[in-house]
Amino acid sequence: MPDSGIRLSPATLPFAVTTPSSSSSGPASGEQRLLERLLAGDKGALARLISWAENADRRYPALMRALQPRLGQAWRIGVTGPPGAGKSTLVNELTRELRKHDRKVGVLAVDPSSPFTGGALLGDRIRMEERTIDAGVYIRSMASRGSHGGIARAAVDACDAIDAAGYAEAILETVGVGQAEYDVVTAADTVLVVLCPGAGDGIQAMKAGILEVADVLVVNKSDLPGAERLVLDLEEAVHIRATGGARRTDDEWSAPVVMCSAGTARGLDLVLAQIERHREWLSQGRLESMRAAKRLAHVRRVAHERLDEELFAVRGWEARARTELAAGKAPWDVVEGLLGSILDRG
Amino acid sequence: MPDSGIRLSPATLPFAVTTPSSSSSGPASGEQRLLERLLAGDKGALARLISWAENADRRYPALMRALQPRLGQAWRIGVTGPPGAGKSTLVNELTRELRKHDRKVGVLAVDPSSPFTGGALLGDRIRMEERTIDAGVYIRSMASRGSHGGIARAAVDACDAIDAAGYAEAILETVGVGQAEYDVVTAADTVLVVLCPGAGDGIQAMKAGILEVADVLVVNKSDLPGAERLVLDLEEAVHIRATGGARRTDDEWSAPVVMCSAGTARGLDLVLAQIERHREWLSQGRLESMRAAKRLAHVRRVAHERLDEELFAVRGWEARARTELAAGKAPWDVVEGLLGSILDRG
Repeated sequence: MPDSGIRLSPATLPFAVTTPSSSSSGPASGEQRLLERLLAGDKGALARLISWAENADRRYPALMRALQPRLGQAWRIGVTGPPGAGKSTLVNELTRELRKHDRKVGVLAVDPSSPFTGGALLGDRIRMEERTIDAGVYIRSMASRGSHGGIARAAVDACDAIDAAGYAEAILETVGVGQAEYDVVTAADTVLVVLCPGAGDGIQAMKAGILEVADVLVVNKSDLPGAERLVLDLEEAVHIRATGGARRTDDEWSAPVVMCSAGTARGLDLVLAQIERHREWLSQGRLESMRAAKRLAHVRRVAHERLDEELFAVRGWEARARTELAAGKAPWDVVEGLLGSILDRG
Repeated sequence: MPDSGIRLSPATLPFAVTTPSSSSSGPASGEQRLLERLLAGDKGALARLISWAENADRRYPALMRALQPRLGQAWRIGVTGPPGAGKSTLVNELTRELRKHDRKVGVLAVDPSSPFTGGALLGDRIRMEERTIDAGVYIRSMASRGSHGGIARAAVDACDAIDAAGYAEAILETVGVGQAEYDVVTAADTVLVVLCPGAGDGIQAMKAGILEVADVLVVNKSDLPGAERLVLDLEEAVHIRATGGARRTDDEWSAPVVMCSAGTARGLDLVLAQIERHREWLSQGRLESMRAAKRLAHVRRVAHERLDEELFAVRGWEARARTELAAGKAPWDVVEGLLGSILDRG
């Protein structure tokens, strides 16, 4: 394997990196080998790095420090919408289409609702298996690990790993439309909201709010009755938003509405054309400030997870909180007491 | 108005409480008057206190410190399930039923998905208007305020306010089934998961996971075809979980499956009977440890929000992170640098 020229720098993190591989190996460590494999296009190496991201393993930041200069090449496409809208099929077909243009595609299927749904998403992914044989496609499912799971934090870190590994497109697909899904898809550069006709009142009610997050509105299952009606409704809603809101400036993007039928692979070129148009629009001097804001949001997410770990576990805040709560202290007062121990109150 | 005998203690929080009312009034402050009104059953006072909780206004902890000894009287009922299962109607009818037994009921309808749905939930609530004329019923909708919104934090604080105000039942209803909804309903003492027949594959797929969170499984719309089939499927799934899992102990609660038709008010007595049975089961020495664990989870939520505010806003972490990110530093390294400024790394 050719040498990438990228070297893992010595750990400068203020905590010791104690992992089986780093403690038992020399300079040509397991992590350095993984780095070389990742850069050579080895999907197993990418899978390992993403697992480290999911588990907040300290080897993740150690590798990403070396890979940081490679970030920002992948275009990040968020795909969301209500259950049953055909998101998985659309992502599958978009991937196939992108491969025709020889673009390497990484897909993250994120399921923040997994405390409820168990392995539902993994079942959906079986349909995508055919694509995984292709060396230019990487597919990964991620599920939440519980209430402190930080699924958006893990998803964005995984997306960074896909970016660093040299994929041209990183697709972030979410199931459902809740807060955690919102956090995930808004980390993307271009957000597709996928709807389909005849899915009932819930989706109609959702339309007003969904415009806020959509860069491209996709009406999937265009062969179903009501598709054109839904397109017109959405276009009207976009128009009202474009002309009625005081907050709107001339510089704002107006989300186009595109019809497609992912099941029969019709209209996918139109979807891709709108993604490309949004990309060009962002690239006219808007991309860097948008990405800077999203990176800052990510720093906050990482900080939340690290602070929880350092303070509640390492620093013993958990035991202290238990004792004070048992003594009848109010939760906010417990927190202020804990905060006082790390913050200088001048 | 009679004096409650409960006094606001002087602010012992290490930050100054600077609000228009506290700075302009003496010992008989606006907050003390609000406290008296709250304890006299004034819904406007409760609404104000909940707004403070939502906005993380410092008057909220100041009041709750005084009210802390009154907490723990309300039974907290979480209600969740997929859109269209009839949760709002069920909550409406359960409230009506509880009122027949002269129980005061507070309802919090929490919509963490509001970044997408806008005001959908508020529309649903119109159906509940009739109940709000009743002095023994308080109804409140809460929506998320964005990605750092901490909707579960706000919902639990609001629930504490309802508890302190003397309501016998606090119903936490959520829309949808994502991570944020999971955080909200698992703060309750008894969790109802509401399903209905014929709602498609998504719900079938959800069943396995949903058992983890349900204390009572409610099959609503029992007059629809497929209701009995759904009951049998759920009972089988509960049975498999009860007998197949290695993690299960004899002391575990097995979720009963109840049929009802909230629209025609049939079967509500059965739902209430199962809530009561779960309450009795918890009260046999299990309640305190369960609630202690949930209070600790809440302290963590409050801490996350306060740490974000104190560190990123007050301490200037936001500006520092922006600068370091712009210089190409990796997010995890930015965070470790920031953590180092508050943590003693021995």
